[in-house]
Amino acid sequence: MTDHVYRVIEVVGSSETGIEDAIKAAIGKASNTVRHMRWFQVVETRGHIENNAVAHYQVTMKVGFSVEDENVSLQP
Amino acid sequence: MTDHVYRVIEVVGSSETGIEDAIKAAIGKASNTVRHMRWFQVVETRGHIENNAVAHYQVTMKVGFSVEDENVSLQP
Amino acid sequence: MTDHVYRVIEVVGSSETGIEDAIKAAIGKASNTVRHMRWFQVVETRGHIENNAVAHYQVTMKVGFSVEDENVSLQP
Amino acid sequence: MTDHVYRVIEVVGSSETGIEDAIKAAIGKASNTVRHMRWFQVVETRGHIENNAVAHYQVTMKVGFSVEDENVSLQP
Amino acid sequence: MTDHVYRVIEVVGSSETGIEDAIKAAIGKASNTVRHMRWFQVVETRGHIENNAVAHYQVTMKVGFSVEDENVSLQP
Amino acid sequence: MTDHVYRVIEVVGSSETGIEDAIKAAIGKASNTVRHMRWFQVVETRGHIENNAVAHYQVTMKVGFSVEDENVSLQP
Amino acid sequence: MTDHVYRVIEVVGSSETGIEDAIKAAIGKASNTVRHMRWFQVVETRGHIENNAVAHYQVTMKVGFSVEDENVSLQP
Amino acid sequence: MTDHVYRVIEVVGSSETGIEDAIKAAIGKASNTVRHMRWFQVVETRGHIENNAVAHYQVTMKVGFSVEDENVSLQP
Amino acid sequence: MTDHVYRVIEVVGSSETGIEDAIKAAIGKASNTVRHMRWFQVVETRGHIENNAVAHYQVTMKVGFSVEDENVSLQP
Amino acid sequence: MTDHVYRVIEVVGSSETGIEDAIKAAIGKASNTVRHMRWFQVVETRGHIENNAVAHYQVTMKVGFSVEDENVSLQP
Amino acid sequence: MTDHVYRVIEVVGSSETGIEDAIKAAIGKASNTVRHMRWFQVVETRGHIENNAVAHYQVTMKVGFSVEDENVSLQP
Amino acid sequence: MTDHVYRVIEVVGSSETGIEDAIKAAIGKASNTVRHMRWFQVVETRGHIENNAVAHYQVTMKVGFSVEDENVSLQP
Repeated sequence: MTDHVYRVIEVVGSSETGIEDAIKAAIGKASNTVRHMRWFQVVETRGHIENNAVAHYQVTMKVGFSVEDENVSLQP
Repeated sequence: MTDHVYRVIEVVGSSETGIEDAIKAAIGKASNTVRHMRWFQVVETRGHIENNAVAHYQVTMKVGFSVEDENVSLQP
Repeated sequence: MTDHVYRVIEVVGSSETGIEDAIKAAIGKASNTVRHMRWFQVVETRGHIENNAVAHYQVTMKVGFSVEDENVSLQP
Repeated sequence: MTDHVYRVIEVVGSSETGIEDAIKAAIGKASNTVRHMRWFQVVETRGHIENNAVAHYQVTMKVGFSVEDENVSLQP
Repeated sequence: MTDHVYRVIEVVGSSETGIEDAIKAAIGKASNTVRHMRWFQVVETRGHIENNAVAHYQVTMKVGFSVEDENVSLQP
Repeated sequence: MTDHVYRVIEVVGSSETGIEDAIKAAIGKASNTVRHMRWFQVVETRGHIENNAVAHYQVTMKVGFSVEDENVSLQP
Repeated sequence: MTDHVYRVIEVVGSSETGIEDAIKAAIGKASNTVRHMRWFQVVETRGHIENNAVAHYQVTMKVGFSVEDENVSLQP
Repeated sequence: MTDHVYRVIEVVGSSETGIEDAIKAAIGKASNTVRHMRWFQVVETRGHIENNAVAHYQVTMKVGFSVEDENVSLQP
Repeated sequence: MTDHVYRVIEVVGSSETGIEDAIKAAIGKASNTVRHMRWFQVVETRGHIENNAVAHYQVTMKVGFSVEDENVSLQP
Repeated sequence: MTDHVYRVIEVVGSSETGIEDAIKAAIGKASNTVRHMRWFQVVETRGHIENNAVAHYQVTMKVGFSVEDENVSLQP
Repeated sequence: MTDHVYRVIEVVGSSETGIEDAIKAAIGKASNTVRHMRWFQVVETRGHIENNAVAHYQVTMKVGFSVEDENVSLQP
Repeated sequence: MTDHVYRVIEVVGSSETGIEDAIKAAIGKASNTVRHMRWFQVVETRGHIENNAVAHYQVTMKVGFSVEDENVSLQP
């Protein structure tokens, strides 16, 4: 068995509807350019307030993905 | 352009239904007395358990609001 | 009035549907063997990603329960 | 049952005699102007030294109080 | 000489009289069911306020105990 | 000698020119409504970027002030 | 697929030879009474010094194990 | 309105003259290859000492930028 | 002398044999695509357990590298 | 007015009777060799357990003292 | 090549003019008695307020220095 | 039994071969000038990278030693 290596990036997703949707927005966007995503970890949950109500939730998260299968994936 | 000043207060909202509702409860209540709220940041998520089930969620959050337009708003 | 003593354990719940469901899963499971649960506190929110989407949410939480009424409940 | 909202303020109490007395000094002073106080949490314990001895203890604490019953209590 | 293994549990003690008494309450209660306790570490100091005064102190602490001499003591 | 009590509030100052000016902006604004300020502590330093350059610095800070001499100053 | 639940306990392993051996000592001891261990996380690395040299390393770690298959495993 | 996604990278800027100049150096350098930068947050401030004086300040900071408008910008 | 700028990325290395080997695995893999690496900092040490033994160590670390000499290296 | 410089050292005091006495023990001992002590800050409160009771409290604290008046006091 | 050893001390510098000057004040003072200083790290930035304005900035910092060349330099 | 007092200093050891050797290097060097060392605690593990490989490990640690038996040992 070989030794695995992962890279962790930090992304911020936002959503008007809820925390889970903000997480999904970030992962969906990331899937356009990052492959082999394996896990996420919420770093911070915040949001903007407009007119005395939550305008959108904003979730900062770390996303880990495998770099085993690609030569280019550690290119920062 | 002038230099902005904000004040940050800490509030705790609770809800029987979910985390987002606890956030909304705190902001809705705050809107009775605080104007110009701009953002919130979740500090802690906890809750009470009764009869082996979640009785309510309890979210501690910081709320930032602008003090530019008011003379009294930094009154602690 | 007597002085209360509580014990705090750490559990991880997971759910495919959302953060609140992951919390409920952990408390429901814990209720099989722990009595007198009183509160929980979220320590970490993370999750697994499969096929570019959230496969399940995973919430690490502390759960506090009263040990007043039982002789055996501090048995680690 | 309604959803509760609390506000958390930060106060510093000091005492020449001990940590508990510094906590009590802050709560006693706060009771002049804050109603419905429910809990406190110690944030930092420090003190001043004079003539090679503790001159006074200084305890920074968060104090939570209910804002359910008052229109004005979230006024920052 | 053999290599020692310890287990650390988290308990919350409370007392109407002071922080040290809250610590003692937790250790006294734990001694009913945990053997070979060796050390404690305060994690959080908080308390409840009733009628504008401290109703009781509440100290969350880690308690470490040796598991060398027992077969059952790592049973969670 | 009496036992002193302080209150700590959190403010955010901003400036286009530098970190010290952001601190001064917050304290200057606070001085309109808060009396007896004694110390500040920087909690976070951040800023906004526009057109590939720092648009303004934003310093979050705690500000402590004495409540000894006033009846109203612990009014949250 | 069902929703998984894990329990996390804290153990301290020690070794005269190195950090990895202290980790192994704790896991080996835990295996006597805990089943289905899945992961560990190092919380603190420390040690004792005797005669100006490291007497033993001491690693505090969290250990997570699955409670799916057992009725009794959340018994604290 | 669409849901925004940002990416956060960590950079270290240094300067012989001061903290603000170290921040500007990092942002100026980043502007060569990163577009749509929106905010920064200081993570750590340190520096090197040579001949009993500050040789240069070194500021570690997070920089957030929008990935809405580009297909390639989440490429890690 | 010019002002230096560095970029910091987060990687996770794993190894069946030990912590140092997990660190080396991550740096070796990163060297395929990142140039001018200068330092690393361990963020977290954890691992997987299989059959009551450590299956592999997993070290999360920050890696800093210089971006002075390259036009493309801040490309995230 | 001149610019003040302080040095901060870390000491651990212990006492069989309570937390305040552990603080006083450390300051009393430090006064034998350190002059111009000005403040302390509690970093950690722990203790040893013997025979199911607190054997002694152990308080780790930072102690700050002025180095203005002495040539030798920054000698580490 | 030999293995290097450093010692880290904590100092507080203050200045009426700014943060960088507070850092320089501490390093300048330390240079009277500490040799081979290599780096500093800011731990906390605070200050005193008098007459509604910053009276002086106060920067707590760690300072690292090499102990390779001296027999006495680890003398605490 | 008397009340013990300890002093804690911070040292950084480095080694080309591994983490444990870096710890030993720091303790060995410290033993030249510090007596009665009792424990250490790892604060940070980092290292330098040269030519795409670990050049040396660098471990920052706190070292505690007893000051009971010496008049001079709290001399900072």
